[in-house]
Amino acid sequence: MIDYTGLNMLKTIHTPRDIRNLNDEQLCTLAQEMRRLLISTVSVTGGHLASNLGVVELTIALHRVFDFEDDRLVLDVGHQSYVHKLLTGRADSFDTLRSKGGIAGFPKTEESPYDAFNTGHSSTSLSAAIGILRGDVIVGRKRHVVAVIGDGALTGGMAYEALDDIGQSEMPLIIVLNDNKMSISHNVGGMSRHLMKLRSSNKYVGFKRRFSGMLRRIPRVGKRISDTIERLKNRIKYFVLPNVLFEELGITYLGPVDGHDIKRMTEVFESVKNTVKPVLVHVITRKGAGYKPAEDDPERFHSVGKFGVETGETSSSESNSDIFADELCKIAEDRLDVAAITAAMTSGTGLYEFKRRFPERFFDVGIAEQHAVTMAAGMAMCGTVPVFCVYSSFLQRGYDQLLHDVCLQNLKVVFGIDRAGLVGADGETHHGIYDIAYLMSLPNMTILSPSSRQELRAALRWAVYEGQGACAIRYCRGVLPDVPNDDIIDMTKWECLHPVRSISVVATGRLLTAARKACEGMDVGLFNARALRPMDEYALRRLSRAHHVITLEDGICDHGFGAAVAAWLSKNGSGASVVTLGVPNIIVESATVAQQDEFCGVTAEQIHKRIIDLMGENHANQG
Amino acid sequence: MIDYTGLNMLKTIHTPRDIRNLNDEQLCTLAQEMRRLLISTVSVTGGHLASNLGVVELTIALHRVFDFEDDRLVLDVGHQSYVHKLLTGRADSFDTLRSKGGIAGFPKTEESPYDAFNTGHSSTSLSAAIGILRGDVIVGRKRHVVAVIGDGALTGGMAYEALDDIGQSEMPLIIVLNDNKMSISHNVGGMSRHLMKLRSSNKYVGFKRRFSGMLRRIPRVGKRISDTIERLKNRIKYFVLPNVLFEELGITYLGPVDGHDIKRMTEVFESVKNTVKPVLVHVITRKGAGYKPAEDDPERFHSVGKFGVETGETSSSESNSDIFADELCKIAEDRLDVAAITAAMTSGTGLYEFKRRFPERFFDVGIAEQHAVTMAAGMAMCGTVPVFCVYSSFLQRGYDQLLHDVCLQNLKVVFGIDRAGLVGADGETHHGIYDIAYLMSLPNMTILSPSSRQELRAALRWAVYEGQGACAIRYCRGVLPDVPNDDIIDMTKWECLHPVRSISVVATGRLLTAARKACEGMDVGLFNARALRPMDEYALRRLSRAHHVITLEDGICDHGFGAAVAAWLSKNGSGASVVTLGVPNIIVESATVAQQDEFCGVTAEQIHKRIIDLMGENHANQG
Repeated sequence: MIDYTGLNMLKTIHTPRDIRNLNDEQLCTLAQEMRRLLISTVSVTGGHLASNLGVVELTIALHRVFDFEDDRLVLDVGHQSYVHKLLTGRADSFDTLRSKGGIAGFPKTEESPYDAFNTGHSSTSLSAAIGILRGDVIVGRKRHVVAVIGDGALTGGMAYEALDDIGQSEMPLIIVLNDNKMSISHNVGGMSRHLMKLRSSNKYVGFKRRFSGMLRRIPRVGKRISDTIERLKNRIKYFVLPNVLFEELGITYLGPVDGHDIKRMTEVFESVKNTVKPVLVHVITRKGAGYKPAEDDPERFHSVGKFGVETGETSSSESNSDIFADELCKIAEDRLDVAAITAAMTSGTGLYEFKRRFPERFFDVGIAEQHAVTMAAGMAMCGTVPVFCVYSSFLQRGYDQLLHDVCLQNLKVVFGIDRAGLVGADGETHHGIYDIAYLMSLPNMTILSPSSRQELRAALRWAVYEGQGACAIRYCRGVLPDVPNDDIIDMTKWECLHPVRSISVVATGRLLTAARKACEGMDVGLFNARALRPMDEYALRRLSRAHHVITLEDGICDHGFGAAVAAWLSKNGSGASVVTLGVPNIIVESATVAQQDEFCGVTAEQIHKRIIDLMGENHANQG
Repeated sequence: MIDYTGLNMLKTIHTPRDIRNLNDEQLCTLAQEMRRLLISTVSVTGGHLASNLGVVELTIALHRVFDFEDDRLVLDVGHQSYVHKLLTGRADSFDTLRSKGGIAGFPKTEESPYDAFNTGHSSTSLSAAIGILRGDVIVGRKRHVVAVIGDGALTGGMAYEALDDIGQSEMPLIIVLNDNKMSISHNVGGMSRHLMKLRSSNKYVGFKRRFSGMLRRIPRVGKRISDTIERLKNRIKYFVLPNVLFEELGITYLGPVDGHDIKRMTEVFESVKNTVKPVLVHVITRKGAGYKPAEDDPERFHSVGKFGVETGETSSSESNSDIFADELCKIAEDRLDVAAITAAMTSGTGLYEFKRRFPERFFDVGIAEQHAVTMAAGMAMCGTVPVFCVYSSFLQRGYDQLLHDVCLQNLKVVFGIDRAGLVGADGETHHGIYDIAYLMSLPNMTILSPSSRQELRAALRWAVYEGQGACAIRYCRGVLPDVPNDDIIDMTKWECLHPVRSISVVATGRLLTAARKACEGMDVGLFNARALRPMDEYALRRLSRAHHVITLEDGICDHGFGAAVAAWLSKNGSGASVVTLGVPNIIVESATVAQQDEFCGVTAEQIHKRIIDLMGENHANQG
């Protein structure tokens, strides 16, 4: 239960209907109170701050006009859902944000009837919303459907597919474009430039005066009228008709509207509420609005850990992303054919330094993983070595391209798969636990799983200098342990840390740390499987003499690395029984990674217990 | 070696340079000869006819202006590459088109230095081409890069992601928009309407006259000038500036140009050859041009089997697609909440009848699989039951959406996965052999694999009437056997055709037919694994008593269903050795499905031999 001291207005809001009785001044107070609560809560829980501060007034205005207990509100990405949650009966428990059993950091239909559709990845809202509208028609239901999508999410191709379909559908979908001039980093691409023009179009009036003057002068110019029109066309195109891109697709454009002016937004939403055709309302918001540290550096406050409210100071410890990016810079000094690619995640993947030092070899393509993967394939076709740094769960968007353009053509593209495995508070949409399962079946694919910072650097060096074809290097959120190793690390071979015994453990990536601890002082075999694919057959042959094999992976275990080990052993005549530990094939909700590990049964203590149990079985069988 | 009778001009073309010496009339003769060869060859080999007939002149013009031994030509989808192949030294062996060891039906870098990038799936060309340009800059190479993309491929979001990036890159990419007003069926969506306007914009001149008159009248109207301008804006927008969509993204638009006028296209390509910025040339072509049956019914001649050249008659036998679609119509009569979705594949997936009978419940979203999947999730959220019929290899595009929007939310969406398994002549980009591997690890997912027409119908009925959550029904190209079954078919249970023996076979889908034949008269166990997931644990427990298990699947076997069987048996203490048969994890090139089966070792004879070998092993072990 949160402390409502100083939140007298928010305290009175139990359902969104309660805000309908408030006047403009009271709404302003409410907005201020919500901002204070957002800042104080997120400073403790961590989470997405800047985007939520930006949509306080927008969310209030939406709830004033629509009744989202019945009407449907689909929030793209969904990290801006905190304000919506505060207004829909979840303020009391807002201090549990992103914690185990608490309020999720994204919309959750299981959590509230006000949440229409679960989101997490970018650019899905328009497709989901038109689906809901079409479903409503089929079942004979009538209600308003609103999708709120950011300018960043519009760079995702999926949003365009949806706009294309929505335009021709002529269905009354209400799209709110929440334009904060950023995705997570600053936006890139043609759409971004287009929106920049839209923003400046509130200079309409002044321009119109000049334009009318221009019109009058035309007949007097005396040159061929068509030439004049050509010139005119260009002027008109860039100043009068910035809305044309949406309108060309069949979607009525309204805006831009100040996203911090509740009154104005209320009027606009009222005016489009009963539209019979698709309409897009362009709302301009300021990411981080109302909290100076976040306004000044919205990227740092996009997704943030704990921070000091007064100072805005966030802690920044070295992460695997930093280590990977640092090694990439070192390699790029030596290898002029190495390039880095990111999909709107320069900061998240640690690439700022690379961008600064090698701008001509750095490519941020926007939230466009599909394009990023095939673009990398094109670069590889020229003999360069592109390194695409991407979160595991976002690479899912580029699966077809990975297979079709990279692997089938056997091109050398390196994938730095960041946030592989369980990610903690961001929850189920953001776990990077499916990559092993889908990468294992691709042709010409090598998968490396470093277990220490040293191995992480070695994996990247191996991929660039020695690897053939595609190479995926998966590393977890946070930081791998420091394990100095004087030997040259051969990432293609499994490391034998204790020779094969009746019970033997094969651990991958960050779980090697838990495995080491679990095996301490016990006579069990222990392998560090640095390469998930191709598997080390020499090590597997030794392993085939074990009676019990335990595999450990930070991913779906019933169809991942462990299953592959079991299949290999079975095919090659080993009678070993294989216990595959990792993430079970059910949904693992928000919590800390340590809590999620415990839920999955892969803490050192739990592994240790499994070993003890198997020893008991062995004795029983022998006795 | 083809018969060059009547192909005197084509006979002289050994490299594209040879066409540079030809005059306009000679080029016209060459075009006619190539059309004749295309028609006569494809009437025997089958393949993509209509699209190739449409690009004869376009391809000639491109090769006249560019030197694609050095310059790079990236053909989107690539099914229109036959003409390019005829001009680049592959005419002699054109009769081997799409056959084992012959000329591939898509661009292949392994086949010719003139092929720049392998394609097959839609909408990849722009990403690949900008990647090549950027790679060239990094390695210091200077050459022209041309991407040819169809209007259909432009509905894919990936193409938009690329346009967005290309526009801001300001790189000198030359994009040729091959606009034949179709993707495979008729195009849908806002972009399609936009292109329709572009096409009609060769009425420019007439309009300009009217427009100048309008301008002169304005000052006399006497109304508020701003009102006039508002009206004017709308007129201008829709008539003068149809090119604005591309230009807004930063890409210079040129066109439209008649795609059957070699001279005009040559001029235009020469004029853009040394562009320093991205440019798009809009070329209008007629799909099927020059062959009346194909012009009249381009969809039927998009991808065609053997046909009579004189009559244009194609054979059409019933396929699994037809059976599935027929059952879907029957269900839709009874269940008013069932809808069908296709991504530009109404005909390929057999949905014409559904579209005709239930237009209000039929949705063709264009080449937009990502949008289709999430749109289906939205519809399911309303309590309808959407059935998305899609080729297995194209569903790869919707992998993230399948996981993130359907499975994580546990929504009931049915996937009719057509062309699952090996597809024959279309080759490696079109095989549907990865779906088992990537579907097996998803939460809340049921995977059914019918082995007969009866089971195919039963699978769909089960999915709609009884299934919970997502259900994927995979069926192969062509037609499953007719296996009357008087029992109610329970698709969730494995069918025991012969009780477990020391050697037991578990077959899935179409491979059950080969397995039955292989096991005939032998005392081996035989199961029909109708459900790949969840697996039938009762059957597996019985199976665990076998010494040798052979699994059979029409998909990648070293990380598919067989691996899952091996992992289950191993985990549950069975000492059975599992041989997983199916598609090995290497590239299976174009051939007939029967030849591909033999390559993979899954013909009845080959399975029979595996069983005999295992029996020998058993005896040796016992002896």
